[in-house]
Amino acid sequence: MYLGIDLGGTHIAAGLVNEEGKLLKKVSCSNLINKTYKEYVKNMADLCKKILDEEGMAISQIKSVGIGIPGTPNNTMGTVTCNSSIKLDDAPIREEFQKYYNIEVNVENDANCAALAEAVAGAAKDVDHSVTITLGTGIGVGIVINKKVYSGFNYAGAEAGHIVIVTDGEKCPCGRSGCWEAYSSAPALIREAKKLLQSNENKDSLILKMANGDLSRIDGRIIFEASKQGDKIAKEVIDKYAKYLSEGVANIINVLMPEVFVIGGGISRQGDYLLDMIRSRVYEKIYTKSEPKTVIKVAELGVDAGLIGAAMLGK
Amino acid sequence: MYLGIDLGGTHIAAGLVNEEGKLLKKVSCSNLINKTYKEYVKNMADLCKKILDEEGMAISQIKSVGIGIPGTPNNTMGTVTCNSSIKLDDAPIREEFQKYYNIEVNVENDANCAALAEAVAGAAKDVDHSVTITLGTGIGVGIVINKKVYSGFNYAGAEAGHIVIVTDGEKCPCGRSGCWEAYSSAPALIREAKKLLQSNENKDSLILKMANGDLSRIDGRIIFEASKQGDKIAKEVIDKYAKYLSEGVANIINVLMPEVFVIGGGISRQGDYLLDMIRSRVYEKIYTKSEPKTVIKVAELGVDAGLIGAAMLGK
Repeated sequence: MYLGIDLGGTHIAAGLVNEEGKLLKKVSCSNLINKTYKEYVKNMADLCKKILDEEGMAISQIKSVGIGIPGTPNNTMGTVTCNSSIKLDDAPIREEFQKYYNIEVNVENDANCAALAEAVAGAAKDVDHSVTITLGTGIGVGIVINKKVYSGFNYAGAEAGHIVIVTDGEKCPCGRSGCWEAYSSAPALIREAKKLLQSNENKDSLILKMANGDLSRIDGRIIFEASKQGDKIAKEVIDKYAKYLSEGVANIINVLMPEVFVIGGGISRQGDYLLDMIRSRVYEKIYTKSEPKTVIKVAELGVDAGLIGAAMLGK
Repeated sequence: MYLGIDLGGTHIAAGLVNEEGKLLKKVSCSNLINKTYKEYVKNMADLCKKILDEEGMAISQIKSVGIGIPGTPNNTMGTVTCNSSIKLDDAPIREEFQKYYNIEVNVENDANCAALAEAVAGAAKDVDHSVTITLGTGIGVGIVINKKVYSGFNYAGAEAGHIVIVTDGEKCPCGRSGCWEAYSSAPALIREAKKLLQSNENKDSLILKMANGDLSRIDGRIIFEASKQGDKIAKEVIDKYAKYLSEGVANIINVLMPEVFVIGGGISRQGDYLLDMIRSRVYEKIYTKSEPKTVIKVAELGVDAGLIGAAMLGK
C-alpha cells in the first residue's frame, strides 16, 4: 500500500492507493495559501494519520509516501520550490514529513504525478511510453518512459506548456512570448472568446446569452456548449483553440513519439467532441505518416490523478 | 570492438570503434543513389570486410554492427524506411547484412546515432541525459536518456526539427508550416540572406562581394564570415537565425531538461561565435531560472559522429 498527497492551491488531498494504482480511500482539507512549509507538512501528516486511523493501519504497512506539488521538486534532496499561489523556496519537505513518519518520501511535480497515474492505472496503463497533458489555468505536461516519470537531470523537465509555437506571440507569465500554454490553457480559450465578443456585430452570440450578458461569467464549458449548439462565434473560437492545441500536441509527438498521448484537465471533459478535432489535425501534422501512430486519448482518473501518481512514485 | 556504418547520400563510411567510442579505423566508398537495399548492404559488407582484412581481425572479434541511416528504422524488425535521396521502404537491412556476417545488427536514425556518439565519447560523455542536434540541410535531433537513444515506441521519435515554432510560418518539406527546421537549417539561413540581398540598397553587402556577386554561391560560412567582419546585412541575418535557433533549443530544454545540449553539423563550426549568441538567448527563455541549468556545447566528433554512434548501438 502507498500514500499519495496532492498539495493544491485550495485543498490538500491524501489517498490510500494499492499496488495497481487503485484509490481505496481519500481525505482532504482546505489549504490556506501563504503558509510555511512546516504548516503544509503538518496538514499532510494529519491527513495521513486520519487515513491510517480510519483504516486501522500502521505506518509500517505503507511502502512509501509521495507528494505532488505545483512546482519544481528535487527528489534527490527531498526539497521543493514553488512559485504559484503556494510559495516554497527549497523547502525540505521530505525531512519535515519524516519528523511525523519515518518512511520513504518522494516529491514530484503535480503534472508529472498525473502522467504517472494515467500510465499506471489510467488511459496509458497498457503502454510503456506516454505523455499526459493537463489543460487548466496552464498546461501541465508529464513524460513517462518505461513506466517512470522522466523530468530531466534536475527534475525541472516536462515544462512543455512553455514551448513556443508562435515566436513573438502572446505574452506568457513565464517570460517568453508565444508559449503553447498562452494559446491552449482555459484562460486562453476565454480570452479569445472575449476578443470576438467585444465587437458589436457579435453581441447576439449564444456565448453571451449563456453567460447572462456578463463577460466575466464566460468559461470554457459555456464556449463549448454554445459551439455544440451551432453558435458561429463559439465555433470560430473552438476551431482556433483546437488548431493551436494541435500544434503543441504534434510538436510533442514529433519529439517523443509516445505510444499514448493523454489529454486531461477540465477542458478534456468535452471528450471526443474536442478530441476528434485534435486527432484529425494532429495526424495531418506529425512527421511519421506510417503505422503505428501515437493514440490520443482522454484522461481517465480526473482530479484524483495527482494523488494516485504521487502514491505510485515509490512503486 | 564494434563496427559502425554510416549510410549517407553521397558516401557510405564504416569504422572500427572500441568500447570507449574511439574510432580506430575508417574506410568509405562513394554511394550512388537509387540503388536497391541489397546493393547498399553489399557495399556495407564490403567495407566491413576491408576493415577486418586490413586489421587482421575475424568477425568473431566484433561484438555487433550498427547501421545509421537518414530515415526511420525499426530495430525490432531490423528494417529501414528512408524517403530522402536514399529510398527504402521497410527494407530488411538486418536480414540482408546477416547473409554476409552472422552477427548482431542494429539499425538507427543517423541523427540519433550522432547523439549517442556525443553521449559516449564526445561533448556529453560525462552526463546521463543529453540532446544533440545536427544543423545541416535540415535539423537532426537525437535524445539520449541514461546513455541510450530514446526514439519512442515506434523508433520514429526525436524528429524535433519538425516542432512548429511559428504557427502558419515558412513551409516545411514535412508538410507542416513553421517548423524549427524551416528557420534554423543551413538552407534557411541562406534563404534569409538572399531575401535581404535582393533589395538594391543592400547590394554593397560583403556577403555578395565574398560570393563574387553570385547569389547561388552564398553559403553559411560566407554569411558568418561577413558578419564577423561587421557587415550590417550579415549581422541582421545571423541575429534572426540565432533568434529562431534559440527558440527551438529552449523548447527542447523546457521539455527534456538534458544536462548537456550539444550543437553539431556544419554551422556548429562557428563555435563560440554562434554559441554565445544562442546561450544568452536560451538562458533568458528557459522556464527554470534556478541552477543547475543545461550546459550548451559544440559537438566534438564532427562527421564521424554518425558511425561512432552506430557502432555504440550494441554497447
